[in-house]
Amino acid sequence: VPTKPVKEKEISFEERAEITNNKMAKKLFQIMSLKQSNLCFSADVESFDLLLKLADEIGPNICILKTHIDILNDFNMDKVQELVNLSIKHNFLIFEDRKFADIGNTVKSQYSGGVYKISQWSNFVNAHSIAGSGCVQGLKEAALQYDEPKGCLLIAQLSCKNNLIDKTYTEKTVKLAEEHSDFIFGFICQNKLTDNPGFIHITPGIQFNENNGMSDNLGQQYTTPEMAILQNKCDVIVVGRGILKSENPAETALKYKNTAYEAYLKRLNL
Amino acid sequence: VPTKPVKEKEISFEERAEITNNKMAKKLFQIMSLKQSNLCFSADVESFDLLLKLADEIGPNICILKTHIDILNDFNMDKVQELVNLSIKHNFLIFEDRKFADIGNTVKSQYSGGVYKISQWSNFVNAHSIAGSGCVQGLKEAALQYDEPKGCLLIAQLSCKNNLIDKTYTEKTVKLAEEHSDFIFGFICQNKLTDNPGFIHITPGIQFNENNGMSDNLGQQYTTPEMAILQNKCDVIVVGRGILKSENPAETALKYKNTAYEAYLKRLNL
Repeated sequence: VPTKPVKEKEISFEERAEITNNKMAKKLFQIMSLKQSNLCFSADVESFDLLLKLADEIGPNICILKTHIDILNDFNMDKVQELVNLSIKHNFLIFEDRKFADIGNTVKSQYSGGVYKISQWSNFVNAHSIAGSGCVQGLKEAALQYDEPKGCLLIAQLSCKNNLIDKTYTEKTVKLAEEHSDFIFGFICQNKLTDNPGFIHITPGIQFNENNGMSDNLGQQYTTPEMAILQNKCDVIVVGRGILKSENPAETALKYKNTAYEAYLKRLNL
Repeated sequence: VPTKPVKEKEISFEERAEITNNKMAKKLFQIMSLKQSNLCFSADVESFDLLLKLADEIGPNICILKTHIDILNDFNMDKVQELVNLSIKHNFLIFEDRKFADIGNTVKSQYSGGVYKISQWSNFVNAHSIAGSGCVQGLKEAALQYDEPKGCLLIAQLSCKNNLIDKTYTEKTVKLAEEHSDFIFGFICQNKLTDNPGFIHITPGIQFNENNGMSDNLGQQYTTPEMAILQNKCDVIVVGRGILKSENPAETALKYKNTAYEAYLKRLNL
């Protein structure tokens, strides 16, 4: 009688919080478990005041707020402090989607310096793996000056059309993450890349409605929450325009939150 | 008698200014030819006041000043205007080394918006080709609102250790540049990638003195000006720390300028 292959056991966010040694990953898994949310809201607006309004409305339903600090036309440090206060009030993490992609010496300054001082207020950032270990090392050196945990995700795959990432690039990215697992705690990706339960898989380009058009006119392509969590086995979905362009963003965010968390529970019990 | 292979004729910067249809490339080749300079100064300092002082001192000897606007701790728009004034006074171009690397919709906002408003004051920028044509298209859309020429270089190779770029990636980058040659006018690279005379090859990680150490402690690796121009057939050398850390930056810049231009003349006459 042929034996049925043993199914790899899915581990809950709660268990993964226990297993990992990475303090940033631990904190995120704990929030996800407590708030029953694996939704990241991508706040791609050009008004910081609007971002703060949205963060307060949507904050209760998300584990992560993703920012592009460098597209805000009314930036100042007082508003950053308001955002940090909201992240404490609603218990979400701030992820600055900076996509660092330079040599170590440069990214170190870009992360901690300039007008934005990203290292001061973001819980974590991301980086392209393209520049190799020096880039990760440079960011890590800047992060080490803080008492609270700071972390970084590596971009292992992209959601946009005709991007230049191939299988080898993705594999090298996973290897780079493993070599720096004290700082790197996961991936921006399209599907699960490793069984190491400490690494979190965060996937952008998510929308409910395929009829909204599965791409924008600049090559972005969309996947549904269920596909991302159940089929592609990612942990966290990133939703931007799907929430922003809806009539009631707070209500829509709640729908995304519930759908994504139910998909996760379904995957756990499969 | 075996025939000697016909040597491909090297074309001067002046001739290349005539040949190209890309207005940004034309402007740069004209400056290089007029100032007899193929030196780009990488002004990686954290003080904008110091950057302005250096730009005024070194300006006469360079064709390009490369900035990382996001590492300056005393940024404001008045200082940007001073930098633009210096670029006119000394006839050099401002290259913001932003390394855009996101989807088109995002880079478009990052290029034109936020605190830095890079598209307003930079002559050209660069982008990683990793996100594909959408990224280039997004930047191009933002550039189109200006009357004066704006341009972009694609990063086809990197100088730092263990970077993830392979031959296929570089080839796809050249192809992407060819498809957008109205906006993309060259490469950040380690060696010449195409015989198309309209594309300029700009190479970072250059220092005279190999004894200074051929790397920093964050994985940057260095090449000499002669190797870059004669052996690797690049057009413009980028020098940062080699000038910044010297006792007399202006005098050192002049030496780099002369060495690099003589190497170019030698290559023309080989």
